[in-house]
Amino acid sequence: MQTDQVIPIDKNTVRADTPGLATATLFMNSAGASLMPRPVITAMQDYLHLETQVGGYETERVRADHMAQLYGEIAKLINARPDNIAFSYSAMAAYTQALSAIPFQPGDVILTTTNDYISNQLAFLSMQQRLGIRLIRINDLDNGDLDLMHLEQLIQQHHPVLVAITHIPTNSGIVQPAELIGAICSRYDCWYLLDAAQSAGQLPLDVERIQADFLVATGRKFLRGPRNTGFLYVSDKVLATGLTPLFVDRQGADWTSPDTFAVRANAKRFEPQEKSLSVVGLVEAVRYANQLGIEAIAQVNQVLMQRLRTGLSQIDGIDLTDLGSVQSNILTFHSTRQPLATLDTALRQGGVLFTVQHKQGAIIDFTRKGIDWIIRLAPHYFNTEAEIDAVVELVDQAVTLPPAP
Amino acid sequence: MQTDQVIPIDKNTVRADTPGLATATLFMNSAGASLMPRPVITAMQDYLHLETQVGGYETERVRADHMAQLYGEIAKLINARPDNIAFSYSAMAAYTQALSAIPFQPGDVILTTTNDYISNQLAFLSMQQRLGIRLIRINDLDNGDLDLMHLEQLIQQHHPVLVAITHIPTNSGIVQPAELIGAICSRYDCWYLLDAAQSAGQLPLDVERIQADFLVATGRKFLRGPRNTGFLYVSDKVLATGLTPLFVDRQGADWTSPDTFAVRANAKRFEPQEKSLSVVGLVEAVRYANQLGIEAIAQVNQVLMQRLRTGLSQIDGIDLTDLGSVQSNILTFHSTRQPLATLDTALRQGGVLFTVQHKQGAIIDFTRKGIDWIIRLAPHYFNTEAEIDAVVELVDQAVTLPPAP
Repeated sequence: MQTDQVIPIDKNTVRADTPGLATATLFMNSAGASLMPRPVITAMQDYLHLETQVGGYETERVRADHMAQLYGEIAKLINARPDNIAFSYSAMAAYTQALSAIPFQPGDVILTTTNDYISNQLAFLSMQQRLGIRLIRINDLDNGDLDLMHLEQLIQQHHPVLVAITHIPTNSGIVQPAELIGAICSRYDCWYLLDAAQSAGQLPLDVERIQADFLVATGRKFLRGPRNTGFLYVSDKVLATGLTPLFVDRQGADWTSPDTFAVRANAKRFEPQEKSLSVVGLVEAVRYANQLGIEAIAQVNQVLMQRLRTGLSQIDGIDLTDLGSVQSNILTFHSTRQPLATLDTALRQGGVLFTVQHKQGAIIDFTRKGIDWIIRLAPHYFNTEAEIDAVVELVDQAVTLPPAP
Repeated sequence: MQTDQVIPIDKNTVRADTPGLATATLFMNSAGASLMPRPVITAMQDYLHLETQVGGYETERVRADHMAQLYGEIAKLINARPDNIAFSYSAMAAYTQALSAIPFQPGDVILTTTNDYISNQLAFLSMQQRLGIRLIRINDLDNGDLDLMHLEQLIQQHHPVLVAITHIPTNSGIVQPAELIGAICSRYDCWYLLDAAQSAGQLPLDVERIQADFLVATGRKFLRGPRNTGFLYVSDKVLATGLTPLFVDRQGADWTSPDTFAVRANAKRFEPQEKSLSVVGLVEAVRYANQLGIEAIAQVNQVLMQRLRTGLSQIDGIDLTDLGSVQSNILTFHSTRQPLATLDTALRQGGVLFTVQHKQGAIIDFTRKGIDWIIRLAPHYFNTEAEIDAVVELVDQAVTLPPAP
């Protein structure tokens, strides 16, 4: 029995909006790239069609109003103002624009977690090598939660220039306490950068409550938008301080005389000029999430994830590998009974779409857990309980398959 | 009379391949974003369709072979090896990846031209402000050509770390002597970066003859590819020296231990991980140019441009504003007889698609020329002589229109 109170999203409608659900029988990869709903697809198809007719510049001119709706929709999603939002090509592109804006000096400290995304870690290590910054990782507690007392001790001891946190890692389902971290950072003189690539579209994000200086997200995951899209939120403090990406382009600044330039007052200074059809796709993706309501989405997700976690936790030979006291729409598991290849093949043959993560993508986390791989399942609100049960059943069958000859 | 000797491209075929030519009656904006040929459009439509069916990750897996053809096609276009090519989101994204790889120190000199692209100039000025580099511009001769003796003097005097040249500016039709510049740079210890955004797809580019260390290009202009695409060529010397972009991501490096990383041996170290449907569009665009042959394209373009230049030069009240001894497929003109608004409206009403450039986009060049704007016409090989004549006729009529009441 579906009532508005129990299930605040009409699954029949959202499923009918999602052509991929007819083909991808058990789609469990919204943490990789989700299935786009029809408004996203239609916007991109129409934009591409117009480009084929009149070329890219004329199309951008004609569709300027549609593209400009991006800032208002994202602002609504994260409780910001449109002037604090910049379009980016990906969460990583947004992330490096943010990093490039901070004038790091040798010896400057960046605090991060052991669970931060691999490409963020690579960017830090590259900056360590090139710029002489120091990278320090905050401890985790035994249950996997971030040690917030250690965070505060490190801030007091090392006066970091930047605290950089991945809200939900790509390789485990933990949700870091973004608001508690923000509350701590706000008491000290440091920048706070939150990578919300896996949380945007899945959980409510309120930049006022998080007190982030920078927040990045991608379009293609739980927001169900196109690939090659993302956005960057920057706080008023960032703008007022004059932080500007190292390589500002003509979208971000005016060329005022041969040897001078003036950057935009708003977050446009962080935005690249070149755009494509994916912008209107992102507009429609964020609008779609806003129309459903992010609180409703989160509520439905919680029901689905509890069912999935409970189901898989009861299977002998399957080890759930997510730690921490708050879990997300990412579930990871490992097995010592069955090799990866057997599980992988069985799930794919069963029509499940998912991602495998290997140790090199999360060296610290997987070393600590003593594992080389995990299978990652990431349902979203459009999935049904019947699909969850089917996946659990497939895993159960796969783990007891006889070993390959 | 069309013969293979005079016109080495079958215009009927290439026009039939270009759906936009049925709508965009007088398309003269290949320097902005050109009209995509059918193989580009079809590749993108098919890719997008598959994404709607199975999601972005599965699509990328299924289409990996198609996407991987990019490196070979670009290598063929510019006489490089596939290992020297990285995909980029735009020419500017490629440009800043290249700039970020050079470990500039305060006082390091960048030599550039007065005609380099505005966003390149902004990047230099931003680096001047942040990193303390020194920006020096090479003189032009009276006819507009770059003063190559001055270039060599500046190199000897200032020992620049980088010589950065825009091959064809966006705001005038001059072709800079990329190979002569390369020959000079090769005698000194400096990096040579060529911005070929406007020349790729229009003119033959041979990185061996140019002797460039870095070459960037965009997909959307004369290559007729999708927006939000570009590429970066890096020389073997760049790779051997170990130059790596400041913000390398997991596409460009492996995370080898918590505090170490290892970059790719090839140009992939300059490439972002996130990709989209536009990659297969770029593959097909470059393949299309390769199949027609870049020499043939250049030959057809020369005939068209001579006709356009001659036609417009004979109109009283129209001033051609391109300088230099070698001209490209970009023609710019100004008028002191007729205001921009009148010309702009008349040409648009006549069905011409073109771009207007204002002074703030090319401060040095336009100040020197004493003008505030130009109209830019950029035909390509698919345009006909009849279209050229029609545009000339429209300009002729527009310049003699009575002033607006």
